[in-house]
Amino acid sequence: MRFSRAFIPTMKESPADAEIPSHKLLIRAGFIRKKASGLYDILPLGVRVLHKIERIIREEMDRAGAQEVLLPIMHPAELWIESGRWDVYGKEMIKFKDRHERDYALGPTAEEMITDLVRKEVKSYKDLPLNLYQIGRKFRDEIRPRFGLMRAREFIMKDAYSFHVNDEDAEREYWNMYETYSRIFKRMGLEFKAVEADTGEIGGKFSHEFMVIADTGESKLVYCEKCGYAASTEKAAQRKPEVPENRESEFKECQKVHTPNVKRIEEVSEYLSVPPERILKLLVYIVDGEAVAVAVRGDREVEETKFKQVFRGKEVRLATDEEIEKFTGQPKGFLSPIGLSIPVYADYSVIPMVNFVAGAGEKDYHLQNVNWGRDFVVKEFIDVAEVRGGDSCPNCGAPLIEKRGIEVGHIFKLGTKYSEAMNATFVDENGVEKPMVMGCYGIGVTRVMAAAVEQNHDDDGIIWPYEIAPFHVIVIPVNVKKEEIRNTAEEIYETLQREGFDVIIDDRNARPGFKFKDADLIGIPFQVIVGKKASEGIVEIKVRKSGERFEVPVKEVVKKIRELLGG
Amino acid sequence: MRFSRAFIPTMKESPADAEIPSHKLLIRAGFIRKKASGLYDILPLGVRVLHKIERIIREEMDRAGAQEVLLPIMHPAELWIESGRWDVYGKEMIKFKDRHERDYALGPTAEEMITDLVRKEVKSYKDLPLNLYQIGRKFRDEIRPRFGLMRAREFIMKDAYSFHVNDEDAEREYWNMYETYSRIFKRMGLEFKAVEADTGEIGGKFSHEFMVIADTGESKLVYCEKCGYAASTEKAAQRKPEVPENRESEFKECQKVHTPNVKRIEEVSEYLSVPPERILKLLVYIVDGEAVAVAVRGDREVEETKFKQVFRGKEVRLATDEEIEKFTGQPKGFLSPIGLSIPVYADYSVIPMVNFVAGAGEKDYHLQNVNWGRDFVVKEFIDVAEVRGGDSCPNCGAPLIEKRGIEVGHIFKLGTKYSEAMNATFVDENGVEKPMVMGCYGIGVTRVMAAAVEQNHDDDGIIWPYEIAPFHVIVIPVNVKKEEIRNTAEEIYETLQREGFDVIIDDRNARPGFKFKDADLIGIPFQVIVGKKASEGIVEIKVRKSGERFEVPVKEVVKKIRELLGG
Repeated sequence: MRFSRAFIPTMKESPADAEIPSHKLLIRAGFIRKKASGLYDILPLGVRVLHKIERIIREEMDRAGAQEVLLPIMHPAELWIESGRWDVYGKEMIKFKDRHERDYALGPTAEEMITDLVRKEVKSYKDLPLNLYQIGRKFRDEIRPRFGLMRAREFIMKDAYSFHVNDEDAEREYWNMYETYSRIFKRMGLEFKAVEADTGEIGGKFSHEFMVIADTGESKLVYCEKCGYAASTEKAAQRKPEVPENRESEFKECQKVHTPNVKRIEEVSEYLSVPPERILKLLVYIVDGEAVAVAVRGDREVEETKFKQVFRGKEVRLATDEEIEKFTGQPKGFLSPIGLSIPVYADYSVIPMVNFVAGAGEKDYHLQNVNWGRDFVVKEFIDVAEVRGGDSCPNCGAPLIEKRGIEVGHIFKLGTKYSEAMNATFVDENGVEKPMVMGCYGIGVTRVMAAAVEQNHDDDGIIWPYEIAPFHVIVIPVNVKKEEIRNTAEEIYETLQREGFDVIIDDRNARPGFKFKDADLIGIPFQVIVGKKASEGIVEIKVRKSGERFEVPVKEVVKKIRELLGG
Repeated sequence: MRFSRAFIPTMKESPADAEIPSHKLLIRAGFIRKKASGLYDILPLGVRVLHKIERIIREEMDRAGAQEVLLPIMHPAELWIESGRWDVYGKEMIKFKDRHERDYALGPTAEEMITDLVRKEVKSYKDLPLNLYQIGRKFRDEIRPRFGLMRAREFIMKDAYSFHVNDEDAEREYWNMYETYSRIFKRMGLEFKAVEADTGEIGGKFSHEFMVIADTGESKLVYCEKCGYAASTEKAAQRKPEVPENRESEFKECQKVHTPNVKRIEEVSEYLSVPPERILKLLVYIVDGEAVAVAVRGDREVEETKFKQVFRGKEVRLATDEEIEKFTGQPKGFLSPIGLSIPVYADYSVIPMVNFVAGAGEKDYHLQNVNWGRDFVVKEFIDVAEVRGGDSCPNCGAPLIEKRGIEVGHIFKLGTKYSEAMNATFVDENGVEKPMVMGCYGIGVTRVMAAAVEQNHDDDGIIWPYEIAPFHVIVIPVNVKKEEIRNTAEEIYETLQREGFDVIIDDRNARPGFKFKDADLIGIPFQVIVGKKASEGIVEIKVRKSGERFEVPVKEVVKKIRELLGG
């Protein structure tokens, strides 16, 4: 490709609405353009990256035994009504009518569409297992689209769905996909973690998220370098502490102290000179209309998703101030676990606490030297606090490492949720009709592109991993008006192409500094700079990622790049 | 690929709603399934074919200097309002509102979207020319979807749009695309013709359609083997006949004959024993409220599209019976060109006619020996009759050949229609702001798949051209329970894969006849049949297209297939 003929509109300034690096850089470097809220034009450089991402996905999915299909984007309403999700999905799903007033949705996900296909074609255990995938547009009408490709309304996804005779086979395929996804993201050159994840609305038994590690990620995860445990903080379990031996022997006498207008944990901590770890935080939740009290150590937060896994209710939320007073008869900010009429649950973090501070149940007073067991009854110790870096691994006890990440893949064991609702059955070896057991497996293709940039960039621009870079090498003649420079550059350009590299030559009649800036911004892994020493047969290779520069003879450019690639 | 694990649901019966071979066979052979009216699931075999078609298109478009982009499928209404097409496009365009009540369309074509991108990024003549293309879904809400992929509501299209500094450069690119399309369809192994076409609603200066030749095609075309002229019959010109010398010397006396209840050309021909070629057919059209009479030779039909090119009105249609009587004062079926108060135009086919039959202008009477010039005045000779096989080539006079075809590609020189409406301008070398000159170029990707089947099938099934076949070779062990046969088949399967062929092995435990039927139905170009002679190291190669069979040693299977491929 010749830069002079390529449609690569680079920009100096970031757009005003771009908040994160990938959004800013993909626009500045000419990979995408905003068409409307949450809608992006993908420009030629972006298409090149997407094709490379898609190719890796296809090769690995095919290798894993999955088969590619293409289902319509227009989803007939009947199927969503059948699964019970037509009304559940809410405003995120775009609905419309055709000219005959029939209802359709723009597919946000395709469980219904694929289950409909498979139930019509598969009748026997002999036709199973089956894993079908597609790569294409998906639609979610986000209320506030943002972060560029990260949370767009129209995006490209790889979605796969598998069908099995039993749970065991579905689980086998689950781990097959786990391995496949690991290979996919590894081949893309991304630092990632597969973490245990909450199964959320989609239902099902267990699931993993594949997270690209990046400081700007919206998700948090923890992992253990010793035993390999890794989980999203929405799911990560606390190691249950032992109850200290002879804890009763340490108990001191409970005392009431005056704490005028001192309510929040930090205020109490400062006022009484007690660290938050020794203060009890007491929260009231409403679970389907019933109130429950939940105690956590003062420096800890309740993780909503984990909480909902423990208290499985239709409606789960924090109580309002009025509800607190109504259910406890105590003033907010001074809630006491003692003498409460509603049940008190306590997070694992409370187990080791002795002689702690808690509210006194009356305005402007706290209690010191409170002890669970002696002063109040814990109905049950539960695991609802958010796990943090440094906490003990629930598996092996080693300290956990905490990172931020971007979810780029998600695998689910679905079970029979959709096959039962939609009557997708097969006849087994004994002639018995059974619902198929399903799994589903997604990768956000456009999101991978954005996540790769979040993870790999610096002040000068993007630093593409080699495998998904729009070009492997950019050849930069510093002055195209000098014949020697131009000819040497063209020679290298041709040689690299012949050797199978994706190459672009910056043949524009522009100042060297301008070209260098664009090359850094676009983020092509290797720059071959052809300057004055071309007359001596010497050019420079710059490695975008490390900034290293090497002077090499023209004849050895290919060899040097191969060497730098580690083979 | 192993047939036993592949999702290839073949069927014995054609679906009831399938009218044409491609629809029947693509369903029966397991390439597609109907999801709803005009919506199809593409199954793994179909995806393989589409990928091959897309790859050829990409390679040739890239080679021609075009660059791939991906624009959203959700088109903001503002852009269509700006171009003036929001209301014009009618019910074929699917419209919907997002959660914020903003209007969108599902893109049926992308002139507006691409012009919006280019007008924002391109400011100078230095950035032109530019040819951008995409491959993706398009939507047309056909009132009556039919013929499977041929006229679906959701389909895959390659659409390209080019931008230029002037007409001359746009024309250069037009012919560049003409050559590119010719290469594309040739590489796909399809028999096709590029024909001059009407520019229709999309506007613009000239256009060509690329037609895949097939007896079942909806379109008609004519071409000349001598000079290369080729045109759709909607566009094809008649060679203008010379007025015969001394025609007046042949004139006979005009006579009125009683023709009771004899109205239609065939009836008159039979009643008077005169061939239709010697009878004048007189039609009345309404052009924007004005009536005109048009005469054609009795065996010819007026081509509506050509007629509209001559009489450019907003509303052009045949007159109703009431209108005929009102404007001519004559009864329908006995219309006479003589003494008419509305102008009489005559098609070229009328020029050589002498002493012909025409209506007498009164009920139940015709005239014999009528002659134009003597008996009535022709306002103008025009070219509105449909050209047929055997007619003279308008270029060189040689007889034309007529075929039916399926439109799979269309190239247009658009001019400045969209760039003017949407203010897509650039500054030229002299600092003058001008609208860009545009071209657009489409290929119906899913339609190519259907057209290939229409052209290439027999009673047993599909006969894929090698370049777009889902697999190149199918290896058929006639009995997988016999170890020798199974091992030989597996060995050939592996060898062919290693040599770069796309291969499927029919490893199903099924009767040979069943496997042969499926292989013929699916239409893979080469079948390698491994039977009893495997013990002697001999297998059979069957060529799907010709039905030829060759016995070859196992070691020479690759060589023989290469030889049959002509290399």
